[in-house]
Amino acid sequence: MPPSLPMTANYPLLNRIQTPSDLRALGRAELPQLALELRDFILQSVSRTGGHLSSNLGTVELTIALHYVFDTPEDRLVWDVGHQTYPHKVLTGRRDRMHTLRQLGGLSGFPRRDESDYDTFGTAHSSTSISAALGMALGAQQKGEKRHAVAIIGDGAMTAGMAFEALNNGGMPHAGRVPNLLVVLNDNDMSISPPVGALNKYLARLMSGKFYTAAREGAKQVLKNAPPLFELARRFEEHAKGMVVPGTIFEEFGFNYVGPIDGHDLDALIPTLENLRDKPGAQFLHVVTKKGYGYKLAEADPIAYHGPGKFDPQIGLVKPAAAPKPTFTQVFGQWLCDMAAADPRLVAITPAMREGSGMVEFHKRYPERYHDVGIAEQHAVTFAAGLACEGLKPVVAIYSTFLQRAYDQLIHDVALQNLPMVFALDRAGLVGADGATHAGAYDIAFVRCIPNLAMLTPADEAETRRALSTAHAHDGPVAVRYPRGSGAGVAATADLDTLPWGQGEIRREIQGEDRANGGHAGQPRIAILAFGPLLYPALEAGAKLDATVANMRFVKPLDTALVERLARSHDALVTVEEGCLPGGAGSAVLEALQAAGIQVPVLTLGLPDRFIEHGDPALLLSACGLDAAGMETAIRRRFLGDKAPQLRNVVNG
Amino acid sequence: MPPSLPMTANYPLLNRIQTPSDLRALGRAELPQLALELRDFILQSVSRTGGHLSSNLGTVELTIALHYVFDTPEDRLVWDVGHQTYPHKVLTGRRDRMHTLRQLGGLSGFPRRDESDYDTFGTAHSSTSISAALGMALGAQQKGEKRHAVAIIGDGAMTAGMAFEALNNGGMPHAGRVPNLLVVLNDNDMSISPPVGALNKYLARLMSGKFYTAAREGAKQVLKNAPPLFELARRFEEHAKGMVVPGTIFEEFGFNYVGPIDGHDLDALIPTLENLRDKPGAQFLHVVTKKGYGYKLAEADPIAYHGPGKFDPQIGLVKPAAAPKPTFTQVFGQWLCDMAAADPRLVAITPAMREGSGMVEFHKRYPERYHDVGIAEQHAVTFAAGLACEGLKPVVAIYSTFLQRAYDQLIHDVALQNLPMVFALDRAGLVGADGATHAGAYDIAFVRCIPNLAMLTPADEAETRRALSTAHAHDGPVAVRYPRGSGAGVAATADLDTLPWGQGEIRREIQGEDRANGGHAGQPRIAILAFGPLLYPALEAGAKLDATVANMRFVKPLDTALVERLARSHDALVTVEEGCLPGGAGSAVLEALQAAGIQVPVLTLGLPDRFIEHGDPALLLSACGLDAAGMETAIRRRFLGDKAPQLRNVVNG
Repeated sequence: MPPSLPMTANYPLLNRIQTPSDLRALGRAELPQLALELRDFILQSVSRTGGHLSSNLGTVELTIALHYVFDTPEDRLVWDVGHQTYPHKVLTGRRDRMHTLRQLGGLSGFPRRDESDYDTFGTAHSSTSISAALGMALGAQQKGEKRHAVAIIGDGAMTAGMAFEALNNGGMPHAGRVPNLLVVLNDNDMSISPPVGALNKYLARLMSGKFYTAAREGAKQVLKNAPPLFELARRFEEHAKGMVVPGTIFEEFGFNYVGPIDGHDLDALIPTLENLRDKPGAQFLHVVTKKGYGYKLAEADPIAYHGPGKFDPQIGLVKPAAAPKPTFTQVFGQWLCDMAAADPRLVAITPAMREGSGMVEFHKRYPERYHDVGIAEQHAVTFAAGLACEGLKPVVAIYSTFLQRAYDQLIHDVALQNLPMVFALDRAGLVGADGATHAGAYDIAFVRCIPNLAMLTPADEAETRRALSTAHAHDGPVAVRYPRGSGAGVAATADLDTLPWGQGEIRREIQGEDRANGGHAGQPRIAILAFGPLLYPALEAGAKLDATVANMRFVKPLDTALVERLARSHDALVTVEEGCLPGGAGSAVLEALQAAGIQVPVLTLGLPDRFIEHGDPALLLSACGLDAAGMETAIRRRFLGDKAPQLRNVVNG
Repeated sequence: MPPSLPMTANYPLLNRIQTPSDLRALGRAELPQLALELRDFILQSVSRTGGHLSSNLGTVELTIALHYVFDTPEDRLVWDVGHQTYPHKVLTGRRDRMHTLRQLGGLSGFPRRDESDYDTFGTAHSSTSISAALGMALGAQQKGEKRHAVAIIGDGAMTAGMAFEALNNGGMPHAGRVPNLLVVLNDNDMSISPPVGALNKYLARLMSGKFYTAAREGAKQVLKNAPPLFELARRFEEHAKGMVVPGTIFEEFGFNYVGPIDGHDLDALIPTLENLRDKPGAQFLHVVTKKGYGYKLAEADPIAYHGPGKFDPQIGLVKPAAAPKPTFTQVFGQWLCDMAAADPRLVAITPAMREGSGMVEFHKRYPERYHDVGIAEQHAVTFAAGLACEGLKPVVAIYSTFLQRAYDQLIHDVALQNLPMVFALDRAGLVGADGATHAGAYDIAFVRCIPNLAMLTPADEAETRRALSTAHAHDGPVAVRYPRGSGAGVAATADLDTLPWGQGEIRREIQGEDRANGGHAGQPRIAILAFGPLLYPALEAGAKLDATVANMRFVKPLDTALVERLARSHDALVTVEEGCLPGGAGSAVLEALQAAGIQVPVLTLGLPDRFIEHGDPALLLSACGLDAAGMETAIRRRFLGDKAPQLRNVVNG
C-alpha cells in the first residue's frame, strides 16, 4: 500500500472535519476554501491509489452542500452508482483511509452499508438510487419519522428503465401522501459523448432552453396593458408552465422541478437545497456539473481520467508503453472488426460500454452497425433479439455482472425463441478493485439453467477468438465468457476458425502411470477439468501432481463424452472454474456423471458461496485457492492424504 | 377438447377470411360487420375454452384496422404481452384451431414465432414490444427493406422501465436515421383500477385534456384581429405544441404523437393508421379502447373477465362454489394479513399483481402498508430494499417468472447487503395454460447460486404458511417458492409458528428392511429427497417401492446433515423437484455429497432442460415423469433393473 498522504499543513480546513457535524459548524464563507482543499486532496489521493477521478472532482461542491444542508446520517443520502463518493467518504470520517482505496481490506470504491453509517445504501450498478431512497422516504413516513431521503443520480443513470420506474412511482401518493423525497440530477454528460438517447437530448435542450423565460418576460411586457388578453396569456402560461420551461417531464411525474443550477456554485447549491429540504413531497433538483472540474487535464479528457491508475498530478497520465499482451477485451474488439468485415449481417450492441467493451474501433469502422442504446440492458437484449428476427447476427457486448440486468430478456426473448445471437460476457469472474458488485461470479450458474442457451469458457486469447467465431456460426444463442485483463498470452491468429462444437480437449496426460501395475506409482489417477483461463494454473498444478488436465471449453453443451472418458480412466476428478460453486460448471460435471451412472470422487474448485471483496485479482484468486498452488494444495488434501495448512482467510470482507 | 364451434352460417364475412389478404380485399363498409362477427366469435370461443377475454374484446377493431392497413406479415406487428392476440390469431389462419387454445398441442394463448409467420415476436411478459419492433425496424433499414414495424402496447405495460428504455432509444437516429417505427399505445386501463403511477395519471389527463384545444381555438378567435399579438400567441403555441396538447412526453422522446383516438371506431383508426404508415421516422398513436368492449358483462367487470374459465355467454360467470381447498396463493394472502396483524413492521410490495398474488384482502385491511408499484419489478425489489434499510420487513410478492425481471436487484441490492426481506414466489414450477413464458422453472437454480439468499420449498399449504413465517423471522433475505393452484390440501393452522432453520424431515421410512440380512429383501435401499409439493407423489412412489422419503423443505441452506445421513444409510438417492434440472436442488444434493466425500448413486428428477409448452399441468407433470407413476418408473429403471416403456413425448412442443 502507498504511504499515507501528508496532510497536516496543506489542508487546514479539511483537517478539522472528522464528521459532517464539523462541516456544519463551519461558516458559509469558509466552504469555498474547503472545496479547494477537498478537491486537491481527492486529486492527490487518487493519483496515488488509482480509482475514479473525473466523477469525484465533479461532485466536490455538491457533496459539501448536501452534508452542510442535511443532517446526515440521520437524513439519508443515496449516491447512484457511487463511484463519485470519494468526497463523501473524505467528509464522513474516512479521510485517513483513502490511501487504502480499492485495495484488499481497504476502503471500497463504492458506498457500503457495512463501511459507514453515512453509506445508507450500497451502490455500484446504476440507477438504483431513486428506488432505494423512495423506500427510505416511505419507511420514515410509515414510522412517523421526519428524516429526509435524497437520491443523487447522474444523467446517464437516468436513462435506465429502473430510474423511470422509480420516478413513475415516486411522485405518486403512497398511503395517501407523496413521500418526502429529493432527487438530485447530477447532469454532467453533455460535454463528453454524443447523447445516445432522447432523455439526454432533452436535458441538453433544457440547458439551452432559456428562450421560454425570455419569451414569457417579453409577453408580459407587451400584454400588461391589455388586461383581458393578458389574462388569456396568463392562462396559457399556466398550462404551459412546467411544460416548456425546464422540468417538463419531471413535473409530469409529480416532482417539483427546480433548476438547472450550477453544481459548482455553493452559493446557488446551499440556499436551493435548504429551500427544497423544507418542502414536503417529491422534489427534483437539476444540477449541472463538469466532470473533472478543477483539474484541467481531467476537464479536457474526462473519459481518460474516469478511472485512471496511479499518476503524477503535475504531469498527468502518461501513455503506457504498449502492453506486452492484449487484454481479452482487446481480443474481442479485434474479432468484432474482423468478423464484421467477413459477415455483413453482424451488428453489435452495447449498453453504454463502448470503451469498456473494446468497441471503439468497431464503432469507427462500422458506425451503421454499432448501436449504443444507453444504460439500458433490458432494452439492449430485446432490441438485439428484434434484429436477430430480421436475419441479422447481433453481438451483444455486456459485462457478466450487467447481464444480470437483462436476465428475463435473455430467457423470454432470446432463449425461448432460440434466436441466433452472441453474448460477449466480459469481466467474467473476479474483477479486482471494483469488488463484489462488479464480479461476474454467477453467469455460469444462471446461464446454464436456461434451455437452448449455449456457453463457452475459452481458456486464452487465441481460444477466445475462436470461441466467438464458434458462437457467431451457431444457429442459436451463445454466451462466451472471458475475464477482465489479460490471460496466458496465447496470441490469437487472424483467421475466423471455429472450435468443434461441444468438444473439450485434453491438454496434459498423466506421464508416470503404469497401468499394468495398478497405475501411477500407487497414487490415485487424477484428472483436472478446467473451464476457462484457470486452465493455465491447472496445467501447472497438473504438472506438479502428474495429473491429466482437460480444457473443457464448453459449459453447455458439456462434453459429456470427455467427462465420462476421464471419469472411467481416472480415480478422481477435479473441476476448476472462476465462477460460483453452487450450480456452476462443476455441478454440470456432477450432473453428467450421475446421468451416466458413474460414481467417482469429484472435487469442485471455484468461487466460494460468499461475496468476494475488492482487492488485487491475483491475491483474491489465490485466497480462493484458485492459483496453481491452491489447486495443488486442495487436491493433495482431498485425494492424496495431505493435511494442508488453512488457506488465508482474506476473502471474508 | 371441446368440439369445434359451428361457424358456417353465423359468420358470413369472417368465414371468407383465411389470411389478412382476404381481409384487405373487403370494402371499408364491410368492416364494422366483420368486427361484430369477430367479436362474437371470440366471445363464443373463449367461453368454451377459457382464456383471456376482456383484452381481446377490446382489440377487435384495432386488429382489423392494423391488418387492413399494413401488409402483414411483410410488415411486422409486435403485440406486447400478447394475451390480446386472439382476434389476430383468428384473422391469420388460426380460426379453426381456436378451440384448442391453451391446451396441450393446441394454440398458444400468446403469439409465437413457431406458430405463425404473422407472430413476428413471442411475447407474454410485458413491455418488450417496442424494443423488439425497434430492432426489426432497424433490421429493415439496415437491409434496405421498406417494411414497417409496429408495436402495440398497453398503458400498463408502458409503465415498465424497459418500455421507457426503448422509447428513449427509439426516437433517436440510428446510423443517421430515425427508424420507421410505429408505437400504438392501447390505452384501456382508465376504467379499471386506480392508476398506480404518474404515467397512468398523465394519460388520464391527456384524455381529459381537451381544454387546450378549446383554449387554442378561443385564443385564435380573440386574437385574429390583432396581428402582432396573434403572432406572439402563435409563437407561444408553437412552443407549447406537443407540450400542452396530449403527447408531450412522447414527443419529447422524438416520436410524432397522434391521438387520442377512439380505438373502436374503424373510421378513425384506418385513415389515421394509413396516414402514419406513410410517414417516416418514429410515430406514436394513442388509441383508447375499452376492455371487454361489446360484451356488457365484461365491460362492467373487466377484471373478472380478464381470464375466465369456461362459461355460458348468455349467463356470464357463475360464482364458483367454495373451492374444496385453498390455493397456495390464498394461503399466502391469509398469512400476509395474519403476520401483518402480529408485526407492525411488515409491508407488502407487488408489481401490479394484487389479484394474482392474493393481496386483495391485505390491501383492504392495511392500505398504508400495501404498495403496488406498477409493472416495475426492478423498482419493486430495490424499493423494498430501501424499506428494509429503515427497519421495516418487506414482503415482495412476485411470480417466480417475474423475479427474472429483477435478478440484478436481487443480487446487488438485496443479497449483497444481506437485507432481511421475504420473496413470496408464486407460480413456481409449471403453470399450465400460460405455458413456457410463465413457467417458474428456473428460480431454484438462479436463486441458489447467490450468496446470503436462502430458499424454502414448502411441501403443502400448512408448511407454506410456516415457511413464510420462518422467512419473515430470518435475519436475511429468503425466497419461499410455491406453485400455482392448490396442493395436497393440508390445512394451515392459525399460528405463526416457524420451521427449524435449515432442517428437513423424514416423512416415510423403509418398512420391509432387514438390516441383519443385508437389507431390504435384496433390493437396494432407496431414499427420495423431495423439494416442494412433489413430496406427495414422492410419498406415493415411496410407498410402492418401499423407499425412505424426506421432505427437504430448504434448498438453501440445504440440510446437509440429513443428506449425508440418508446417503450413508441407503444405496441410492433420488431427488425430486418441480424446477429445472441443471443447477437445481438435485445439483445442490450432488454438491453436498461431493463436499462430504460420499459416493452414492443419485437420480435427479425435475423439469428437463427444454421449454415446456402450455397444457394441463397434471398432464405436463406426468409427461415430465413427475407424477407418482413417473417417479416410480424412473426409479425402477435406474436402480431396480426395470426396462420401462418410453415416456410419452408430449413436452417437446
